[in-house]
Amino acid sequence: MSEKKIPYKIYLEESEMPKQWYNVRADMKNKPAPLLNPATLKPMTAEELGAVFCKELVNQELDDTNPYIDIPEEIRDFYKMYRPSPLVRAYCLEKKLGTPAKIYYKFEGNNTSGSHKLNSAIAQAYYAKKQGLKGVTTETGAGQWGTALSMACAYFDLDCKVYMVKVSYEQKPFRREVMRTYGASVTPSPSDTTEVGRKILAEHPGTTGSLGCAISEAVEAATTREGYRYVLGSVLNQVLLHQSVIGLETKTALDKYDITPDIIIGCAGGGSNLGGLISPFMGEKLRGEKDYHFIAVEPASCPSFTRGRYAYDFCDTGRVCPLSKMYTLGSGFIPSANHAGGLRYHGMSSTLSQLYDDGLMEARSVEQTAVFEAAEQFARIEGILPAPESAHAIRVAIDEAMKCKETGEEKTIVFGLTGTGYFDMVAYEKFNNGEMTDYIPTDEDLAAGFAGLPKVE
Amino acid sequence: MSEKKIPYKIYLEESEMPKQWYNVRADMKNKPAPLLNPATLKPMTAEELGAVFCKELVNQELDDTNPYIDIPEEIRDFYKMYRPSPLVRAYCLEKKLGTPAKIYYKFEGNNTSGSHKLNSAIAQAYYAKKQGLKGVTTETGAGQWGTALSMACAYFDLDCKVYMVKVSYEQKPFRREVMRTYGASVTPSPSDTTEVGRKILAEHPGTTGSLGCAISEAVEAATTREGYRYVLGSVLNQVLLHQSVIGLETKTALDKYDITPDIIIGCAGGGSNLGGLISPFMGEKLRGEKDYHFIAVEPASCPSFTRGRYAYDFCDTGRVCPLSKMYTLGSGFIPSANHAGGLRYHGMSSTLSQLYDDGLMEARSVEQTAVFEAAEQFARIEGILPAPESAHAIRVAIDEAMKCKETGEEKTIVFGLTGTGYFDMVAYEKFNNGEMTDYIPTDEDLAAGFAGLPKVE
Repeated sequence: MSEKKIPYKIYLEESEMPKQWYNVRADMKNKPAPLLNPATLKPMTAEELGAVFCKELVNQELDDTNPYIDIPEEIRDFYKMYRPSPLVRAYCLEKKLGTPAKIYYKFEGNNTSGSHKLNSAIAQAYYAKKQGLKGVTTETGAGQWGTALSMACAYFDLDCKVYMVKVSYEQKPFRREVMRTYGASVTPSPSDTTEVGRKILAEHPGTTGSLGCAISEAVEAATTREGYRYVLGSVLNQVLLHQSVIGLETKTALDKYDITPDIIIGCAGGGSNLGGLISPFMGEKLRGEKDYHFIAVEPASCPSFTRGRYAYDFCDTGRVCPLSKMYTLGSGFIPSANHAGGLRYHGMSSTLSQLYDDGLMEARSVEQTAVFEAAEQFARIEGILPAPESAHAIRVAIDEAMKCKETGEEKTIVFGLTGTGYFDMVAYEKFNNGEMTDYIPTDEDLAAGFAGLPKVE
Repeated sequence: MSEKKIPYKIYLEESEMPKQWYNVRADMKNKPAPLLNPATLKPMTAEELGAVFCKELVNQELDDTNPYIDIPEEIRDFYKMYRPSPLVRAYCLEKKLGTPAKIYYKFEGNNTSGSHKLNSAIAQAYYAKKQGLKGVTTETGAGQWGTALSMACAYFDLDCKVYMVKVSYEQKPFRREVMRTYGASVTPSPSDTTEVGRKILAEHPGTTGSLGCAISEAVEAATTREGYRYVLGSVLNQVLLHQSVIGLETKTALDKYDITPDIIIGCAGGGSNLGGLISPFMGEKLRGEKDYHFIAVEPASCPSFTRGRYAYDFCDTGRVCPLSKMYTLGSGFIPSANHAGGLRYHGMSSTLSQLYDDGLMEARSVEQTAVFEAAEQFARIEGILPAPESAHAIRVAIDEAMKCKETGEEKTIVFGLTGTGYFDMVAYEKFNNGEMTDYIPTDEDLAAGFAGLPKVE
């Protein structure tokens, strides 16, 4: 162990920021399975993917051999406006818990989007601009991704069309207004601006929308317009690649003080944050250089790792996207009563799914009220009001620190604090009023989701 | 000028953070006038003030001779959780404006309270805890101060009673829930929990409250309870003292790179941020060591510096607090139609008022729509969505940078970016929809306010 005094916040110098993203697939012996064309069940080609996604992003999506990919200077310059993010030593939390464990968190919430999503949004906007496109389309549920993309598009002067699930559009007007302030057009989904939207409206006149429907509208809006492409904020390999900036900075900061983590914890919805945080550490593990205990934390209400199946499935409930092999609850599975909107996804990144299937990390599911108890405790002692998503990681970090208190072990725990909860106060209000409940799907609920899995050999 | 490359964000090391606050009054030849007891019109004694405020804070309030006051270690430890705040070089904004000016901003919004208010809240909570008090009371309008105080009280395990103006309580439920998450009790004001509240409710049954009424309730709640004191987030000398941490960090960061600012700009409501930012620079000016051009920016709708009178007046509309000599519009002046709640105060810090009266700084008033235009431009290019209050300073910083573009001068401009606008989206929505209007009080409006000034020799 180092003799250097560890500050509350470890900030890197600008010159220490990563100049390349790390592509964990390059070090995986078992590569993640390719995306399949749902019509032919054959791997999607670059050309097929290029009709939906930007060209350079397709290259990144398919590249499972190059370990390092240069971060263009324009993206690094944007990163410098809000990065490096601090790696914080949770001295106050450790003291409060009375644990011998050493707790660190990488805080990604210090930017207006309020989360790590901006790391990939700016990259995707950059490649769209470089390709000479006019704009991009996307969907957003809780609104973090839509906000991040709006910010990125404003910076590069790109048009940004966001399809926002209608119920969120109405219940989260502030998120909507942040996006509009950044110049994005925000359309409640389903809408009459697309064929698929009109069809859904005709069939279900009173619907408040779903993420699946919003994806379908966003994809249609991109593919039927000259000069537009569709972009996505999680799940994809390219997103994990961009998010590796989180893990790379974390590793550099730890190395500066000769700190080796024992446990690395992240919340897992589609996998963008978890994948980004653990990538460089996982690389060391894959290459046999070091060992770490990785823990993916998911909500008990949407337990794709802990209770899902490893199978080919649609990425969207609208079934317009390619098939991905992943841990999934079935694209028809509808998770209820969970406020962590960013974790309400039926599937999981195919890269993380393969790593999990290979036994390289643990997954744990936690219940909502226990998550908010951890969120409140953390807020009161460490100051930051966490996003409900991030609080899943806090819950398990505290649990592990309390185990250390019992055993006397001085483990070093690192977790990802992906964002802030300023736009999630409806959920906090429920918790403050003692009105929050837990929800765990029954085996029957899960069976119904699995029944909808496509048949792929 | 230095040859060192200036990074996007200048962060100080923990060891470079200030260990003492700077008390600008010590270097003032003309001291700010003392607070007066409204009954006797004699200066308030420490004993009289001690009935309302914590003892150590009273000492700080009255101390106009000691230039440096130690920051207790417990407060410095808390500061380390969210400070040092970055001094940001606005490279992207400069490029967009095409100005030869060099623009820097000190960003105080990277904490859950969303503003600089936490710098004084933690100090006031600390001294209350040290005095063995059970809790503190305060009022809040827009909610930034109430949030900051709730966070500080949670950290020191103090009870926190916040009287929130009823209209804000109802229209800003998210702010309320943040405070509740930190364990504060939040009461809509006027309420039936105080005598003054009951009296007002009886006289005006449908009232939605006012800051003046909330102050009166908070003061009553503190002075009629064993073990409680009242705390205030702006205007007072003690608050400016605590906020000097902003200016001290700014100066250390600039000195590291041999940068000397020409112009220093801050928004001004009660004066806490402006006073804190400029204090150490003003000290140099007062001691004849250096010269700077200071600009206080206030809303045209509430122009206490630019159109107010320098006179003794009540600090609150309820007229229960001591009299302060300050630039004021009269405690009965009600500013309308301005969304920057933090700048809707009829008076001004007595320290800043004296400095302004002595010709040591300029004041400028700006209109609301022009402020939001600057806010939107700044958000899109620098990423951060500013609080409406902070955007007043952005407006003038951009104006000054554009003057440099005309003249070709390479001036160095520093401004205070006090906070984020995440809880101000109702105002942004009005702006996005083109529904925002300006309001400038007429001379008759002002005359009505001045007519209510108390007669003090």
